[in-house]
Amino acid sequence: MPSISQISNQRSFSGSLQKNVKTTGLSESQIADVKINRKRLWADLHSTCEWGKGERWGDGPTDIGMSRLTLSDADKQARDWFVETTKSLGCKVQTDAMGNIFAIRPGRKDGPPTYAGSHLDTQPTGGRYDGILGVHAGVEALKTMNDNNIETEFPTGCINWTNEEGARFPISMVSSGVWAGAIPLEKAYDMVEVGGGKATQKSALERIGYLGSLEASHKVNPIGAHFELHIEQGPILEGSGGKIGAVEGVQAFRWHIITVKGRDCHTGTTDFQNRSDAMLTAAKLILHSHNKATELGCLASTGILTLKPGSTNTVPGFVQFSLDIRSKEDAKLMKFEQSLKEGFAKIAAGEDVGGLNAMGTKGRGCEVAWQLDTDSPATKFHEDCVKCVEASAKDMLGTQAGNQVQRMTSGAGHDSVYTSRHAPTSIDGVSHNPAEYCSPEDCGNGAQVLLGAMLRYDRLRAEKGL
Amino acid sequence: MPSISQISNQRSFSGSLQKNVKTTGLSESQIADVKINRKRLWADLHSTCEWGKGERWGDGPTDIGMSRLTLSDADKQARDWFVETTKSLGCKVQTDAMGNIFAIRPGRKDGPPTYAGSHLDTQPTGGRYDGILGVHAGVEALKTMNDNNIETEFPTGCINWTNEEGARFPISMVSSGVWAGAIPLEKAYDMVEVGGGKATQKSALERIGYLGSLEASHKVNPIGAHFELHIEQGPILEGSGGKIGAVEGVQAFRWHIITVKGRDCHTGTTDFQNRSDAMLTAAKLILHSHNKATELGCLASTGILTLKPGSTNTVPGFVQFSLDIRSKEDAKLMKFEQSLKEGFAKIAAGEDVGGLNAMGTKGRGCEVAWQLDTDSPATKFHEDCVKCVEASAKDMLGTQAGNQVQRMTSGAGHDSVYTSRHAPTSIDGVSHNPAEYCSPEDCGNGAQVLLGAMLRYDRLRAEKGL
Repeated sequence: MPSISQISNQRSFSGSLQKNVKTTGLSESQIADVKINRKRLWADLHSTCEWGKGERWGDGPTDIGMSRLTLSDADKQARDWFVETTKSLGCKVQTDAMGNIFAIRPGRKDGPPTYAGSHLDTQPTGGRYDGILGVHAGVEALKTMNDNNIETEFPTGCINWTNEEGARFPISMVSSGVWAGAIPLEKAYDMVEVGGGKATQKSALERIGYLGSLEASHKVNPIGAHFELHIEQGPILEGSGGKIGAVEGVQAFRWHIITVKGRDCHTGTTDFQNRSDAMLTAAKLILHSHNKATELGCLASTGILTLKPGSTNTVPGFVQFSLDIRSKEDAKLMKFEQSLKEGFAKIAAGEDVGGLNAMGTKGRGCEVAWQLDTDSPATKFHEDCVKCVEASAKDMLGTQAGNQVQRMTSGAGHDSVYTSRHAPTSIDGVSHNPAEYCSPEDCGNGAQVLLGAMLRYDRLRAEKGL
Repeated sequence: MPSISQISNQRSFSGSLQKNVKTTGLSESQIADVKINRKRLWADLHSTCEWGKGERWGDGPTDIGMSRLTLSDADKQARDWFVETTKSLGCKVQTDAMGNIFAIRPGRKDGPPTYAGSHLDTQPTGGRYDGILGVHAGVEALKTMNDNNIETEFPTGCINWTNEEGARFPISMVSSGVWAGAIPLEKAYDMVEVGGGKATQKSALERIGYLGSLEASHKVNPIGAHFELHIEQGPILEGSGGKIGAVEGVQAFRWHIITVKGRDCHTGTTDFQNRSDAMLTAAKLILHSHNKATELGCLASTGILTLKPGSTNTVPGFVQFSLDIRSKEDAKLMKFEQSLKEGFAKIAAGEDVGGLNAMGTKGRGCEVAWQLDTDSPATKFHEDCVKCVEASAKDMLGTQAGNQVQRMTSGAGHDSVYTSRHAPTSIDGVSHNPAEYCSPEDCGNGAQVLLGAMLRYDRLRAEKGL
């Protein structure tokens, strides 16, 4: 069995590439011998987490959360690091019109790259692993390929997607969505930041110098395959002793903004009968969404709520809140949404639904309006990719594998949802503590599986002529 | 019957005052002959409403709301007008340590003045009559006394109280509260503005130059009587054909800030059982406060709600909301509050109260904390003052009076609540359309009654030796 370095010597980067020669990539045992540098991954990740540090939650040196909102100054620092690092590895780096950054390491042949991709932005009270680990694992995979002088059949690379979180500009996965043709560029550009600021996603891209010239399009800039390493954000893998999840798909979700209009009035002088209380109505609607989700086996959540005018002794005439609804099945989600639309209208008009208007005083009613912001149908990932993740995980864990490798459905959306529409995709899931901690071992495992999946898929592409 | 001008000639301002001479003020018919200038009142009021204009709500020239938050630049403009105008009328003007401004017109004798008082600040989406009309009517009363060369037995005057609304710095009637010794000066000074700004009430007073040197104290700066003209902010007077309300008292109210603590988690990956959803819990508590208020015949309202972290796909771990509860009786209000405290704790812990936890999924529970911000017990006004308002209203309306003059209880707090603790007080209520409109006729009626009540009370003081 030749060593990796022997292989790479045969297929030297600096040597002339022989076109049209049939190859089948690295063998299974050769791939098994390629090991990422776990200490380097851990050190790199925490060094970039200096940019956009959040609140400390524990005593350890890295027990600090993240608050790196997309296109902030801290996000720019992380992006600059990504560009400089991947360029230093010999990658060609391109930025598209949504600020998505594609770092491409050449392969033996040309063609759409096999990518690792995720995002460097975080929630306002986010952690150090959601998204960030996925990008760092991709960069570590490229570094490991360089260390071992590996020449892949096709180009490989790493993508940093812009604004996956949707926390600052309120459409999540918006930039992979534009790339996939699912979200119009102008709609993405025109989003205004939440919280009263005036920046749009476009002005924010311009401000930090990441409004690229490459069209954000799967047609102009195709992807050969997309692998994403992601921490598990729920309790399933952790709770069942799993180490690595081979993610088969993502549940459907739809994000709405619900607007409730009533009328401002004085809290002391207006009796309940004469009120159109938008806050009381919103409270009933939020509770109803939860009750109905329980009944139908779906999820419903409200993460943002604003009201006007905002004074202790004025009954608010205006409330807006976010409504995030989810289900594993598209049809079930639409049935749930339809039921909520009917229920909300009745409750706001003062009719009783589920006991919510049974105990209080009937007022003058409010108006309810729905606005759909994000629509993400249930996603099924490419079986070839899922198998590559699974094989890589089993190889790494060896005889201990057993139920430590599990197939699963993701509850959360990821950029992989949009890439899967136009490229074979899967997610390599890694167990993650709810307190925003991912152990060095789990981080390393995830990155090792990611690298193995990329190399296996590269071989598969060569074998199948993909 | 001598004319007013004849009376005033006998008791000239410029002439030497004879001390210790028994007088009994103006006669009933003399008071009846003193008429305010209704056009001047209307023009003055709308000219000062240029400062802090809000949103237009109708087509008329004055159909524009107000947004003159306390101690803002617009409030400074209104204050400057008040000081300049009353000085030009010959008043002595004093500003105390809370920015309360006292304009004093000398009387025949020294002693605590008989004041008209109200406030020039407004809610963020306020109108042109709440508070503003009360101050303008007081200034118009002083102008009318000058026009007619009236010399009162005791000094009369007009007060502009600071931050009656509690909309920017969240304790309402805070500055009359400090004057009354009911709120510590430091607590009032240290209030931070709502909405994320950093100003305190003290820094805001300093910024606009209204941090006065006079101690804010009923002991140092006593009041002889306090009359307040106020629009009705509810539907009772308007609905029953009343023109003028002689207000006997104010219902009790208590303002709380309720804090709900749960835990942030991802909306897509965390099932309901594993959530500590502070927003869902807050929705249940708000609905419960309404249901319980209905049951006990009280009022409950939530006008402010903030949450963290504020992202569509993060279940909020932190919610704070205002809770304004009211009742005509102190004991009933405390019973209501006690019931809410027990109910809130149970609901947050997942126990069922009033069906609110019956339909959904039991999660991991949240913690609830209460903080009392304003405590205003039920107030009963001074019968002498109430009678002066009543007599003045009946005199003005003449044979038409009938049920156009009504005794009533105010639902809203006013600075008169605090002045009543240390000075005879009543409110002259005037009907007011919910769409923030008060007709020129109603404004004039209210101001005329205010003047009449002040002059009648001045006479009563002389008669009774008060």
